[in-house]
Amino acid sequence: MNNMNRAIAELMGTFWLVFGGCGSAVIAAGFPDVGIGLVGVSLAFGLTVVTMAYAVGGVSGGHFNPAVTFGLWAGGRFPARDIPLYLAAQVAGGIAAAAALYVIASGAPDFALPVNGLAANGYGEGSPGGYGLVPAFLAEVLLTFFFLFIIMGVTGKNAAVGFAPLAIGLALTLIHLISIPVTNTSVNPARSTGPAFIEGGLALQQLWLFWVAPILGGLLGGFTHRVLHAE
Amino acid sequence: MNNMNRAIAELMGTFWLVFGGCGSAVIAAGFPDVGIGLVGVSLAFGLTVVTMAYAVGGVSGGHFNPAVTFGLWAGGRFPARDIPLYLAAQVAGGIAAAAALYVIASGAPDFALPVNGLAANGYGEGSPGGYGLVPAFLAEVLLTFFFLFIIMGVTGKNAAVGFAPLAIGLALTLIHLISIPVTNTSVNPARSTGPAFIEGGLALQQLWLFWVAPILGGLLGGFTHRVLHAE
Amino acid sequence: MNNMNRAIAELMGTFWLVFGGCGSAVIAAGFPDVGIGLVGVSLAFGLTVVTMAYAVGGVSGGHFNPAVTFGLWAGGRFPARDIPLYLAAQVAGGIAAAAALYVIASGAPDFALPVNGLAANGYGEGSPGGYGLVPAFLAEVLLTFFFLFIIMGVTGKNAAVGFAPLAIGLALTLIHLISIPVTNTSVNPARSTGPAFIEGGLALQQLWLFWVAPILGGLLGGFTHRVLHAE
Amino acid sequence: MNNMNRAIAELMGTFWLVFGGCGSAVIAAGFPDVGIGLVGVSLAFGLTVVTMAYAVGGVSGGHFNPAVTFGLWAGGRFPARDIPLYLAAQVAGGIAAAAALYVIASGAPDFALPVNGLAANGYGEGSPGGYGLVPAFLAEVLLTFFFLFIIMGVTGKNAAVGFAPLAIGLALTLIHLISIPVTNTSVNPARSTGPAFIEGGLALQQLWLFWVAPILGGLLGGFTHRVLHAE
Repeated sequence: MNNMNRAIAELMGTFWLVFGGCGSAVIAAGFPDVGIGLVGVSLAFGLTVVTMAYAVGGVSGGHFNPAVTFGLWAGGRFPARDIPLYLAAQVAGGIAAAAALYVIASGAPDFALPVNGLAANGYGEGSPGGYGLVPAFLAEVLLTFFFLFIIMGVTGKNAAVGFAPLAIGLALTLIHLISIPVTNTSVNPARSTGPAFIEGGLALQQLWLFWVAPILGGLLGGFTHRVLHAE
Repeated sequence: MNNMNRAIAELMGTFWLVFGGCGSAVIAAGFPDVGIGLVGVSLAFGLTVVTMAYAVGGVSGGHFNPAVTFGLWAGGRFPARDIPLYLAAQVAGGIAAAAALYVIASGAPDFALPVNGLAANGYGEGSPGGYGLVPAFLAEVLLTFFFLFIIMGVTGKNAAVGFAPLAIGLALTLIHLISIPVTNTSVNPARSTGPAFIEGGLALQQLWLFWVAPILGGLLGGFTHRVLHAE
Repeated sequence: MNNMNRAIAELMGTFWLVFGGCGSAVIAAGFPDVGIGLVGVSLAFGLTVVTMAYAVGGVSGGHFNPAVTFGLWAGGRFPARDIPLYLAAQVAGGIAAAAALYVIASGAPDFALPVNGLAANGYGEGSPGGYGLVPAFLAEVLLTFFFLFIIMGVTGKNAAVGFAPLAIGLALTLIHLISIPVTNTSVNPARSTGPAFIEGGLALQQLWLFWVAPILGGLLGGFTHRVLHAE
Repeated sequence: MNNMNRAIAELMGTFWLVFGGCGSAVIAAGFPDVGIGLVGVSLAFGLTVVTMAYAVGGVSGGHFNPAVTFGLWAGGRFPARDIPLYLAAQVAGGIAAAAALYVIASGAPDFALPVNGLAANGYGEGSPGGYGLVPAFLAEVLLTFFFLFIIMGVTGKNAAVGFAPLAIGLALTLIHLISIPVTNTSVNPARSTGPAFIEGGLALQQLWLFWVAPILGGLLGGFTHRVLHAE
């Protein structure tokens, strides 16, 4: 595959992840009486990855997430020279998705950005459940660590053929089931950057954590898997 | 496969999609205390496609949706001469399903068509969340675009064998998790036509959008995938 | 496989279906504040079939349901001489499961059989949503018809290898998502017989419908599939 | 695989099971208005097994549970000499997970251990629904019996290739859908030991049941499957 096709696949996949995951949160989670709640949002985030990884995994590998790209590099599965291309595509996709979501969501009669937001990530004042910086940081590192450890395992050469997109997407669903109240769940700097870029304010001020912690966790997860299985 | 078998497969699949998806919405979504809500309806729509695509995908390809048929034509995967047959079967299946659903749902003690409806699609006054024409149109185009892009990808010659019905059905679940509040979610003109045909009134007046927007999105999705992968 | 092993597989599978499906309804559906609701019950019924069909499908075929056994006979996939053995095992499993569920569920401080019941099926007075005999009968016939049509399709010789238990179980989840308010969802005479046998009263008086309608729907579904694909 | 790698796989898998399953319960189940409820917790427990069994099943077999280890031994699939290694790794993983969960969960503004707990298992006073010792014991034995029976079946030599982690994880989801109100659902002594070790008090006093009952059920399930299929 040429680089243009790979970049387009990453851009479209990350667009879908942010539009679908954050969109379900903004539009449908709190809908009166029959809203999908956090279980629906968790399912939505996971299904964006299941569907797009089956669709374009063969083109780009289906990262859709800078922490995955860095983690696979640490795991010895991705070349350093391609990291900038992937990150640029992922961030562009995330921002475009948040913009598209803003256009559609603001069509609701009572939509107001400061109140409803675009499902940005946060800690302390920005955390849905009021979790402080330390537990937020630890949760993001720990969950991205396991996310990468699982991704390395299910895409290894002994893994069951064809099941990787399902396992990886469902891992993302699981991660959201655990941690939306803590940070609104990132484990993905591109997913965090989109809404923060459109919302500005607190979301943008706190964005650093959602680059540092997921990438740290991803690097540790990829590297740990590589060391354990190098024997 | 002969044309009669293919038409019957499309008719039955679309019947199942409309009866199952709209049926879950009408009968079970708002059931007191333990109703399935929009997360259950989203799951139901997706599972109609998962189950029928595994059952008859080998016969007709398992479109069950005019936007899919047009999109696959734009993607170079379906011959133009078969479009009328498929559309006729899909619309017939959708209308028959809405009629069957009306017969069963009206057996509830407090059922009244103008109030409960048959889960028709709509915008503005007809939108569950009051979303206007422009966001409704954009949402339907965008979501059907990605739906077709995913379908093209997961049914391509390098895709994982056997997983396409699962990925396509779960994509439909995801699309509903995002957008039921916007338009009640169509991305499928036959699904919209069934309830509108039985309900009449506003649903029928607004039906044009749910033919134009999904087919436009489907054509763009199929064509985009074809161009990107033609290189 | 010898007949003893096949009968044990059917008995255990039907036990699991009734214990798991009805158990989730009785114990967890209405649990205060965090109950699983009808979406959880629908998932539970489907997962009993997913899990047991993967576990013992190779032994008995994984029917766990007299309507499936009759339907597969009508579809030319099951010999008439084995029907009595399968039905006896299924009914025994269903009754044993309802008895086991009664023992466990009655350990709750506020359990009372006439009030809580064991998730028996019913129509009219016995329908969760008050649906009358005619819509209840039609719903059971129609849903079992499609259930068998799907089962025939996903277990045919051109079907995707390994996915049948998943597709069949998810079809059962879908069927429950649509129709619990109508009849508490049967599509399975053995599932209906277990709770009715322990509860007695209204459930037992109405049990006939949940033998007649599902078996009629199953016969039609199996036969229709056979005719369409015999060409 | 050497023993160190197998032990690490079991430790990490059990950590993920306890952190993810109990974490979803503690952090997200009762979140105001949009909490995931017992259906989300059930899904989370199952997905920990789906994801980790796909990731490290090829290393250790993916038990993550002393009752599974004993059950597979009774089924003739696991050597007695490796039981201590697996149990030590599983218990260490469970305790470490509960400690990590405590660190993160206690970052919520209103967290108090005696009130919120860490999703420990219990009966009587310790049962979410007030179920007594006898129904709690019976439920744990019965559910672990079927869990092992299913595990033996889906990992047998005639089972569908690649589907075992999905079927086993979804079996755990199903088991939770049925029985959280009874005992908070264990079927896994290591899952019970982690929270009890950190919480102390009632959870620790009642811990014996969640070693005895699941292991008894697991032994019976593994042995029954072995006998039935030895013919």
